[in-house]
Amino acid sequence: MVEFNRSDFYPIKHELTSHKITEKISDFILKKNINDNFLIQDISVPNNLKSNSIFFLFSNQEIILDFKKKILFITDNENLIKSCENFILVDDLNSSYNLILDTIFYHDDSLDFYDEFNYINGSYISKFCFIDKDSKIGKNCLIGRGVKISKNCIIKNNVVIKNAIINESVTICDNTTIGTTGFGFNLLNPGSHNINPQLGIVYIDDFVHIGSNCSIDRAKIDITYIGKNTMIDNLVHIAHNVNIGNNVTIAAQTGIAGSTKIGNNVVTGGQVGIAGHIVIGDNVLIAAKSGVTKNIKEGSTVAGFPAIDIKEWKKNIIRLRKYGYKWNSKNITTQVSFFTNW
Amino acid sequence: MVEFNRSDFYPIKHELTSHKITEKISDFILKKNINDNFLIQDISVPNNLKSNSIFFLFSNQEIILDFKKKILFITDNENLIKSCENFILVDDLNSSYNLILDTIFYHDDSLDFYDEFNYINGSYISKFCFIDKDSKIGKNCLIGRGVKISKNCIIKNNVVIKNAIINESVTICDNTTIGTTGFGFNLLNPGSHNINPQLGIVYIDDFVHIGSNCSIDRAKIDITYIGKNTMIDNLVHIAHNVNIGNNVTIAAQTGIAGSTKIGNNVVTGGQVGIAGHIVIGDNVLIAAKSGVTKNIKEGSTVAGFPAIDIKEWKKNIIRLRKYGYKWNSKNITTQVSFFTNW
Amino acid sequence: MVEFNRSDFYPIKHELTSHKITEKISDFILKKNINDNFLIQDISVPNNLKSNSIFFLFSNQEIILDFKKKILFITDNENLIKSCENFILVDDLNSSYNLILDTIFYHDDSLDFYDEFNYINGSYISKFCFIDKDSKIGKNCLIGRGVKISKNCIIKNNVVIKNAIINESVTICDNTTIGTTGFGFNLLNPGSHNINPQLGIVYIDDFVHIGSNCSIDRAKIDITYIGKNTMIDNLVHIAHNVNIGNNVTIAAQTGIAGSTKIGNNVVTGGQVGIAGHIVIGDNVLIAAKSGVTKNIKEGSTVAGFPAIDIKEWKKNIIRLRKYGYKWNSKNITTQVSFFTNW
Repeated sequence: MVEFNRSDFYPIKHELTSHKITEKISDFILKKNINDNFLIQDISVPNNLKSNSIFFLFSNQEIILDFKKKILFITDNENLIKSCENFILVDDLNSSYNLILDTIFYHDDSLDFYDEFNYINGSYISKFCFIDKDSKIGKNCLIGRGVKISKNCIIKNNVVIKNAIINESVTICDNTTIGTTGFGFNLLNPGSHNINPQLGIVYIDDFVHIGSNCSIDRAKIDITYIGKNTMIDNLVHIAHNVNIGNNVTIAAQTGIAGSTKIGNNVVTGGQVGIAGHIVIGDNVLIAAKSGVTKNIKEGSTVAGFPAIDIKEWKKNIIRLRKYGYKWNSKNITTQVSFFTNW
Repeated sequence: MVEFNRSDFYPIKHELTSHKITEKISDFILKKNINDNFLIQDISVPNNLKSNSIFFLFSNQEIILDFKKKILFITDNENLIKSCENFILVDDLNSSYNLILDTIFYHDDSLDFYDEFNYINGSYISKFCFIDKDSKIGKNCLIGRGVKISKNCIIKNNVVIKNAIINESVTICDNTTIGTTGFGFNLLNPGSHNINPQLGIVYIDDFVHIGSNCSIDRAKIDITYIGKNTMIDNLVHIAHNVNIGNNVTIAAQTGIAGSTKIGNNVVTGGQVGIAGHIVIGDNVLIAAKSGVTKNIKEGSTVAGFPAIDIKEWKKNIIRLRKYGYKWNSKNITTQVSFFTNW
Repeated sequence: MVEFNRSDFYPIKHELTSHKITEKISDFILKKNINDNFLIQDISVPNNLKSNSIFFLFSNQEIILDFKKKILFITDNENLIKSCENFILVDDLNSSYNLILDTIFYHDDSLDFYDEFNYINGSYISKFCFIDKDSKIGKNCLIGRGVKISKNCIIKNNVVIKNAIINESVTICDNTTIGTTGFGFNLLNPGSHNINPQLGIVYIDDFVHIGSNCSIDRAKIDITYIGKNTMIDNLVHIAHNVNIGNNVTIAAQTGIAGSTKIGNNVVTGGQVGIAGHIVIGDNVLIAAKSGVTKNIKEGSTVAGFPAIDIKEWKKNIIRLRKYGYKWNSKNITTQVSFFTNW
């Protein structure tokens, strides 16, 4: 499993202990139990529990508790914390998340975030990043705090890379953005100041090719991952927490929503949309312009929206064209905008 | 109503009086009546009549005349100008528009547009813009002539902002373009030199969040507006003259065509397309990948293309899958491009 | 026909003769016949045979041989080379292509590519490009090796132009990428280091307007062409080897896959997808959100996915809504992701 050191990217602004946190979010607390007063230095996720961390238990997460580690659990679901040693039950988990993490960590969606740059060969390179001497950075780029770029990478021009680890021999084409803010929020509490702090990274593995004008968002807490030899075309959107396997091919203008997992050797046509929080198995082929709304079994070939087996999709197209001979042209109320300014 | 001073963005190049304008477009004039000879200093739109202005009456506009103001009306529809004091009836309204406004105003689609920059902390900042000292601009940005950025904004890196007013606490992520040329032209007269001068602005209200690699075009004459607390994901296209309400959420790769009005609290899924010149009511939900082609009543939930009530859409999907058992596989002529280079 | 001098963009790294090439790819050779030992200095394509060149015969190409020119043919299809004087039959044509062309030419997807820049008025301008004095380049741009920009062009800000010829009076808006790597590869051999060397260019003809945040890829060997007076909106993807006619209008977020040919006066709505290797005739109208999967006859108006005649498409929509009154709500298994993080 890939690891990263959060404070390389998001320095600690104010140290908070578990007791201090109860003060900080006192307005939201319904119930609490704090056996230990320890310093919070990191954030845990279900598959990666860390000592001296805070763990926000949203109801849709699988929980594997580890009682040996000092973890402060915060949740709005009483059932989830019955066996926790250190927990806070709150009535507004989203606001608690924002309030606590905005207090502890610096990040680039708050005004006080701090980075410092050298201007080297036409690009702004953070004093707190690492770029292997055998990699090449074009002009008008920005490489931000904590970023690590391994050897033999080609970063072209006007590329922005923040909050990311780039392994060996990766190519990133012009005007692409890696590691900017994931689109995470609570619809009931919208606006720029209520976007959930996004404190994870993007991890791009060896021999990945990424086209021009793409956006790959960093994870909320852990990692947006792009596997080895994967090739991504232009104008592609990869949301926060997406996990893409090895040898995947993603054609232009495809979008993959948050937390979706794409298996190995998957191929998508252009303008495909893949919903969030689903799993696409290995060796799946997704026809161009498909909208995938649910899990797809390995080895399937799907098409259409909602995407179904391509043979079924083709049958549907035929059926649609054969039926309904008696239709009344006066009833045609469909309209399509054609021209100038879609 | 939001106001702006056009000449902050588009300085006056040549002053034209109403009489001079009749000379300028003499080739197109069918009929005219000019009672006053006054200087044209601005452009009026239906809901904002200004004295000493020119008003191009396209047939699809609602007209509310105000006879106290000195306005020169130009139209190709004789019915529209019968009661105007100062009017010119032309046989080519589009060319008249281009010829007159290209003469009066400087704008960034003509070679003679003039701006002057300081290089401050890694970005080009126009000498004729205002940025509040409590806002933060990243590297490799350009902030153009007339732009006003209020306090507590975060403009990330490689962002281009021209012809825009940015209110308080707005975040704009990397590689996004605000205020570039709207896609306005006459199909019969195409090409870069016949694009209609786009002389309006973008107005982004408080607490808006805009993702990376987005394009938000300035209005043709008045304002492309983004309401308070609205959140826009990555790779989104917002065309000229669009008006978006407050607390709206727009997922990635959505496109909104020109002059469409989006109510408050609207939510769109990813890859949604919304046609131009329509009205989406408050509290509408638009499922991912929908294509909205007509007005949507407030509170509706729609899906599909053309987008319909989501319950109806789901029924249609079911119907399609149930019907037509007797189909002949030899008739399958549908084909889909899958792989490499969509 | 448009011509260009390949070595202006892709300098020759190592000179290879036809005999040396047989050594280079000896692992893949099944059969060969080399009558002449000549220097390879260029690459031929079916409609443009050049002396002292290499010609990779992929099976889907039309072949018009010219025996007067010194050409080395390389193919994996024995039928194609029976009458060639100089040929190599290989068992892995894709790897042979990569190995030979990566050896002969420098290009910007390999670490050893070399360009050198002046920083002029806020942009990086290659010492090996030509920009007419009557054209205007904004800030934070990069204009690469070999690029030629003719008079009266407006290149806005943060634009990257490489491997391209720009004719007169072209406008290119902010954050657009011209001439980056086409998405060409063999699915069986994925990854950044196996992308086929893309050694062609983009040719943009007079009076073209290109919006913001677009990607136009250079051709694999010859030319991605955009015809006169063509207008392209924002966030549009044009793949390698696409050929677009004159007076074409392409609305926002449209994508055109590789090697497709678009006739004159074609108009596409927004979010249209057009498959690769097809031909769209003159005067075709393509409704917004259509997915065009096969050749379209001139003068047609199409809609839907797969795109069909718009009248048929409208009938289908009506049919779908009329049929199937007896449906069972329990069967509704369709699901759509709506909200936060598509």
